[in-house]
Amino acid sequence: MNILAIGDIVGSVGCRFLRSKLPTLKKLKAVDLVIANGENSADGNGLTPSSVRYLLDSGVDVLTAGNHSFRRKESYDTYDECGQLLRPANFPAGAPGHGYMVYDMGRIQVGILNLMGTVYMDPLDNPFFTADRLLKDTPTITVVDFHAEATGEKRSMGYYLDGKVSALWGTHTHVQTADACILPKGTGYMTDLGMTGTVNSILGVKPELTIRKMRSQMPVRFDLVQQGPFKMDCCLFEIDDTTGRCQSVEPLELQ
Amino acid sequence: MNILAIGDIVGSVGCRFLRSKLPTLKKLKAVDLVIANGENSADGNGLTPSSVRYLLDSGVDVLTAGNHSFRRKESYDTYDECGQLLRPANFPAGAPGHGYMVYDMGRIQVGILNLMGTVYMDPLDNPFFTADRLLKDTPTITVVDFHAEATGEKRSMGYYLDGKVSALWGTHTHVQTADACILPKGTGYMTDLGMTGTVNSILGVKPELTIRKMRSQMPVRFDLVQQGPFKMDCCLFEIDDTTGRCQSVEPLELQ
Amino acid sequence: MNILAIGDIVGSVGCRFLRSKLPTLKKLKAVDLVIANGENSADGNGLTPSSVRYLLDSGVDVLTAGNHSFRRKESYDTYDECGQLLRPANFPAGAPGHGYMVYDMGRIQVGILNLMGTVYMDPLDNPFFTADRLLKDTPTITVVDFHAEATGEKRSMGYYLDGKVSALWGTHTHVQTADACILPKGTGYMTDLGMTGTVNSILGVKPELTIRKMRSQMPVRFDLVQQGPFKMDCCLFEIDDTTGRCQSVEPLELQ
Amino acid sequence: MNILAIGDIVGSVGCRFLRSKLPTLKKLKAVDLVIANGENSADGNGLTPSSVRYLLDSGVDVLTAGNHSFRRKESYDTYDECGQLLRPANFPAGAPGHGYMVYDMGRIQVGILNLMGTVYMDPLDNPFFTADRLLKDTPTITVVDFHAEATGEKRSMGYYLDGKVSALWGTHTHVQTADACILPKGTGYMTDLGMTGTVNSILGVKPELTIRKMRSQMPVRFDLVQQGPFKMDCCLFEIDDTTGRCQSVEPLELQ
Ligand SMILES: [Fe+2]
Ligand SMILES: [Fe+2]
Ligand SMILES: [Fe+2]
Ligand SMILES: [Fe+2]
Ligand SMILES: [Fe+2]
Ligand SMILES: [Fe+2]
Ligand SMILES: [Fe+2]
Ligand SMILES: [Fe+2]
Repeated sequence: MNILAIGDIVGSVGCRFLRSKLPTLKKLKAVDLVIANGENSADGNGLTPSSVRYLLDSGVDVLTAGNHSFRRKESYDTYDECGQLLRPANFPAGAPGHGYMVYDMGRIQVGILNLMGTVYMDPLDNPFFTADRLLKDTPTITVVDFHAEATGEKRSMGYYLDGKVSALWGTHTHVQTADACILPKGTGYMTDLGMTGTVNSILGVKPELTIRKMRSQMPVRFDLVQQGPFKMDCCLFEIDDTTGRCQSVEPLELQ
Repeated sequence: MNILAIGDIVGSVGCRFLRSKLPTLKKLKAVDLVIANGENSADGNGLTPSSVRYLLDSGVDVLTAGNHSFRRKESYDTYDECGQLLRPANFPAGAPGHGYMVYDMGRIQVGILNLMGTVYMDPLDNPFFTADRLLKDTPTITVVDFHAEATGEKRSMGYYLDGKVSALWGTHTHVQTADACILPKGTGYMTDLGMTGTVNSILGVKPELTIRKMRSQMPVRFDLVQQGPFKMDCCLFEIDDTTGRCQSVEPLELQ
Repeated sequence: MNILAIGDIVGSVGCRFLRSKLPTLKKLKAVDLVIANGENSADGNGLTPSSVRYLLDSGVDVLTAGNHSFRRKESYDTYDECGQLLRPANFPAGAPGHGYMVYDMGRIQVGILNLMGTVYMDPLDNPFFTADRLLKDTPTITVVDFHAEATGEKRSMGYYLDGKVSALWGTHTHVQTADACILPKGTGYMTDLGMTGTVNSILGVKPELTIRKMRSQMPVRFDLVQQGPFKMDCCLFEIDDTTGRCQSVEPLELQ
Repeated sequence: MNILAIGDIVGSVGCRFLRSKLPTLKKLKAVDLVIANGENSADGNGLTPSSVRYLLDSGVDVLTAGNHSFRRKESYDTYDECGQLLRPANFPAGAPGHGYMVYDMGRIQVGILNLMGTVYMDPLDNPFFTADRLLKDTPTITVVDFHAEATGEKRSMGYYLDGKVSALWGTHTHVQTADACILPKGTGYMTDLGMTGTVNSILGVKPELTIRKMRSQMPVRFDLVQQGPFKMDCCLFEIDDTTGRCQSVEPLELQ
């Protein structure tokens, strides 16, 4: 089967661009399952019931999240109730929602795990141990969105789960990496998918604002660039249904 | 002119692989100037007089460095004496060596600036202000190696210096990014060049060691993978000699 | 002369408690000059024109600040205009206000410097170099509020400026330390003054809220404890007017 | 019973000073149980079998540790074998040694828990959940050494365990705090005990070395001050044997 993984969708401009491009791409690439990171899909960061609804209506099957998961209180019930939304599994017990699901595609089931890194990020539970705990008795096809900052942590998790999952990709940095590959034991891998939103921006934000922040070290409100060009950074993982091994990895940057 | 920028060279295996590939690549791509990050060129990290010598003898014209610049005491004199070696310019006054040079190519002069980020890194001087200070009265062609962790900081510096320098590339994460481009005002840009060394590794290090570190949170010595395959991550910037603007950017991953 | 240094004043409850206690203490201890850290004096953090006015009306002579200096936009003009308010001097050039002043007491002038640490804090300019630059040609009596997190950084600055300033105290952790002393070369020193506000709190905040934050790793709004008991953590430095050397250091916790 | 808790012992000078002072203090204060943090007891940091042996021979009953627990490989067996040595309980499973013990004093048993913070420190397991797990069915008298950096995290843990343990003290910053108290529900509390070693030092280290490090941002070897004066920072908790509640808290700084 073909799984399309889409990098952090930033703001309503990112959501709209995804909606304009995804249907065609799904047909063109015979995509069976679309998993996208939605942690920045609401304007002002985080995600909301309406940004979740919009993205699922646009052809995304499952949304994952990250360090901005719980920025919006209005999203907490959605995490609990929506069967197509995950947040990192290594948040402490008691967090709204779930970090792992088995997504039922009828003829086939797909395990989906969302994890978050702890290097240069919040001190969540050790993601390696959370993976150990949740990746028992998983379906043949199981994939992981590892939302993390440090390349060393992401590549380590890739090698740690190599042969145990079908594919693992990173999210969070909003910049696509060029290291997509199949790891030695058959797992499709990519350090970061990148982002979906405006091209001439700093991770979606107006450059003059992030520059002002770094030059002044004073508080700055991060407004998003609204005008295009836009892009959708993603990666297509072709998985063998019988073995769960990754057959091919194709990074894409759709403009 | 064509400037080849090479990502962090890791260990003697990385140095040897560079030596085996660089001469051919220089001819093939008509490279005029080679700038490489050497902060991990010594086995055990940092750089040494002999790793510097080896890389310069292998066809590198100028070496830059980063957070591991001063790991080896035996390198301090080299920083002071070698005219082809830089370290980040925003180290506090008094650090060995220099952060900016004008490299004399006879018919043309090239300004080269090495900076380090401060997000998730040591608190060096603000790199934006250091850039302001050093990028006055620079040659028409001036380039920057911005050694930094966070994508937001690197892209911000890229936009900040857009139109002021010919090219700016990032180093440090050891993973090549897929966002090479010419920014709106003509500066060639890439968030991270990647690394030069072993492919099946975590930034050069044996995967079982970085995994052990992250699972145990205990001290682990990071030995490098020695066996191939190897790669040399780099990027070719074609610069107009008259205007200093970047004409084309070509990311490369040489195996 | 006797200089009273008061630790971070937290919220309007802290401001009111200070007003109720300061006049008596000033008489009792023959205090000549009161310097207080006001970075948390506004409810909701930061400082406002009205919290500044209230504190100056309550007997504080000079207010210093810290990492929360610029949280409130309405305070920026006050930083520029008020002659009794400082913010850390090592903010980048262009920040509102000033980091050093000579406070004119008629018969005597007192240099006052506010610095911020960079360990576990924002990457401001290196505070040691900022101190070098600003502590030339200072009055005989000069004191420093070093707003910093790490004990190692604070004690290092104390020893660095020992003999060069009359007194240096730390702020920011909101917990008073027990190491008040006169350093070998005559500078009065204390790692942290503590805070002014509610006793049964976590740095002023309701314990159930900071606990919820740390157990859940989710966003939590930090409301202050409103009910007493209250305290005012401070320290009295007796300085010789002629030599500028510290004669005695007396830490105080007024309930 | 009277429990004496001693702050981080730094180097062999700290160990020797403790040996010279502890026996007298134990008699003077009728100390029943001595718990000391030994994470820096070896010269060069960490602890060794011989520094452990020396401290236990000097009158310490139980040693705790912290972020430097596993710096010395030669100590790993000691962690596994010595019944009087703990390391933070929230290290990942598989770490040498234990984080909790019931210390058998014959007529009475005392639970001792060692935890480490995660704010500005390594991403160990969430210490609040580790406390939940280990503080079930504990003896009437149970105490905690919380080795952590941030005052907010330490005070939060104090309030979280208030009424559940007899006493909780912090270690790690090497500077004694002035907030020793009995919390509202009866737990003896102190944010940091301080250190045992040389007075005129930066946490035990020569001031010129830590200053050089912070001014240069270059690697510096941290040698300890060897000459006195010395001190032993500690705190005496008087616990009611029947209720386990703390009756009094007496911070001490023995010179
Ligand atoms: Fe994101
Ligand atoms: Fe993120
Ligand atoms: Fe590197
Ligand atoms: Fe680096
Ligand atoms: Fe504060
Ligand atoms: Fe602060
Ligand atoms: Fe320590
Ligand atoms: Fe420690």
